[in-house]
Amino acid sequence: MSLREIMSKTLSEWMKGTGPESDIVISSRVRLARNLEGIPFPGVAGEEQLKTVVEKTKEAAARQPLLAGADYIRLVELPVLERQLLVEKHLISPQHTKDVKYKAVVVRDDEALSIMVNEEDHLRFQALYPGLQPEEAWRLCSRIDEGFASLLPYAVSPDIGYLTACPTNVGTGMRASIMIHLPALTMADQMKRLINAVAQVGLVVRGIYGEGTEVLGNIFQISNQVTLGRTEDEIIQHLLSITRQIIDQERQARRRILQQNKVRLEDKIFRSLGLLTNARIMSSQEAMQLISDVRLGIDMKLISGLEPRILQELLVMIRPAHLQKLMGHEMEAPERDIMRATLIRERMKPHPAK
Amino acid sequence: MSLREIMSKTLSEWMKGTGPESDIVISSRVRLARNLEGIPFPGVAGEEQLKTVVEKTKEAAARQPLLAGADYIRLVELPVLERQLLVEKHLISPQHTKDVKYKAVVVRDDEALSIMVNEEDHLRFQALYPGLQPEEAWRLCSRIDEGFASLLPYAVSPDIGYLTACPTNVGTGMRASIMIHLPALTMADQMKRLINAVAQVGLVVRGIYGEGTEVLGNIFQISNQVTLGRTEDEIIQHLLSITRQIIDQERQARRRILQQNKVRLEDKIFRSLGLLTNARIMSSQEAMQLISDVRLGIDMKLISGLEPRILQELLVMIRPAHLQKLMGHEMEAPERDIMRATLIRERMKPHPAK
Repeated sequence: MSLREIMSKTLSEWMKGTGPESDIVISSRVRLARNLEGIPFPGVAGEEQLKTVVEKTKEAAARQPLLAGADYIRLVELPVLERQLLVEKHLISPQHTKDVKYKAVVVRDDEALSIMVNEEDHLRFQALYPGLQPEEAWRLCSRIDEGFASLLPYAVSPDIGYLTACPTNVGTGMRASIMIHLPALTMADQMKRLINAVAQVGLVVRGIYGEGTEVLGNIFQISNQVTLGRTEDEIIQHLLSITRQIIDQERQARRRILQQNKVRLEDKIFRSLGLLTNARIMSSQEAMQLISDVRLGIDMKLISGLEPRILQELLVMIRPAHLQKLMGHEMEAPERDIMRATLIRERMKPHPAK
Repeated sequence: MSLREIMSKTLSEWMKGTGPESDIVISSRVRLARNLEGIPFPGVAGEEQLKTVVEKTKEAAARQPLLAGADYIRLVELPVLERQLLVEKHLISPQHTKDVKYKAVVVRDDEALSIMVNEEDHLRFQALYPGLQPEEAWRLCSRIDEGFASLLPYAVSPDIGYLTACPTNVGTGMRASIMIHLPALTMADQMKRLINAVAQVGLVVRGIYGEGTEVLGNIFQISNQVTLGRTEDEIIQHLLSITRQIIDQERQARRRILQQNKVRLEDKIFRSLGLLTNARIMSSQEAMQLISDVRLGIDMKLISGLEPRILQELLVMIRPAHLQKLMGHEMEAPERDIMRATLIRERMKPHPAK
């Protein structure tokens, strides 16, 4: 199998770079936190109780038409590398790879739908769509939620809604987030201002793997802070409306840079292209930044003949677990840096159309 | 006319990257300082005397078969840009472009032979050959010297030889120099040691335009310090022998880098290639350094499909006067940086064979 084929098999739908506003928005995600009635939250539950959660959710999952063909996988049965792979694909949280004894995951083939069992809550449903589609993600998440609700009684308070381990999730139990590429706002030094402004309307901007993680390649996650006192639809509409404003600002910033100093922007973008397609050793961090520059060049039509989806794919494929999976063996960082550079060069080489 | 054609017309023979040891040695140059008997050195001569030098040397030049077809050019008649062009081609010294009233230059079509009139001395003959050919340069210089000597009486002391304005040139009046590319010794931090060692055997290592000039692109000039008490042949043989040792050391340093960390070297070289072929803005200094890296890559057979002569040409073509000549108008530095990047990309693009 060629590298290209192996890679395309490893790719999730959301990485393919399609979907509305895909020149700026990478993906839309909705997750719902749910807990089973009468069982303590995973952090405080005993082994028997955690086991019960696994048994009950496994049974419920098997009866969901939406999960047809998807395996219910115990994390203990998954090699460490495979767990890391799921993190890099944003299908499970980094936290879900630790203390795995009673943790499980269900991932639908297209990876648009996944469930974490016994993470912070008993159940965390996630729907992940390419581009700006939070409503679609919410609808899918809602349907799987209803499917489980019809089989398993949830912990709900009539006053405040769904009960969750962490009070920040109480109410709807929903976190909707948009992964968004904001290179021009970053170049224009506008992100600090934007993060503050967004905080004042109840949203939060974070790094690429969520809370507490680093911003890489000018990719940010915008998500709702408030889960209580609003309906899910209201939360989605609010996030959508603010995201549209941010998209507008990013577009304006791009136009401004183009007007003010096109050649300097081109210089930056093409230098990044030159390094990506020629370097022999490359760290993950450098690669993310260069990919961001080149992606901007494509989206601003300064670079032609390079598909944006190649860069979208690379954003995931260059991460440590994906690289090791691709190469078929474990690698230390220096070897990974060489393989990463090789993979990027190989993938960005012009290929004859099939 | 295409850029490629214009450029090839602007090129001197020595820039074409041929000649012995041309993977390391760029060019070999010999110059002889001579003064006319009974006339003070240019620095102290009166206007009438300088005029006399011009008249006499013009007449003598016209009678040299070696200079058939070459024009005798008064510097005053040459636009400032053209003067600078001759400096960048190493045909005249930077000093020769100032106070030009009674200065002149003769340049043979192939640029292998040139004469400065009323620089520091009345006559400075120069022969310039590609690669390591100081003996050939000396032979040519000697022949033109004999041609002039048969017509014009030189200032000579029977005890010490030719008299010159600066005592450091007295005796043979000869300065033989080798322009040499030493990237591996530079990377290995060996240049300081080498410069000291070379000084102890009566040679001197300088930057690209001679005394007091900066080292650019890892290109050095090695020349004799001593002009007195040795024959010209001895000076040439000594320079040749020391240069061969330096070439050996550079080759060893290249092999060592290759053995110790090939991929790191490749990374450096290919990153430079990527920047050269993609940047939109480039300073002269950056370009020289990147060209040096890529040239090393070609000479070490790490890069294929790129002719070394293209880089040799670019080393000269990217300098300010050449750039402006090529573009047909004067340019400020920011515009030059853009044109320089354009020229480099254009020239390094793979062209179909004619």
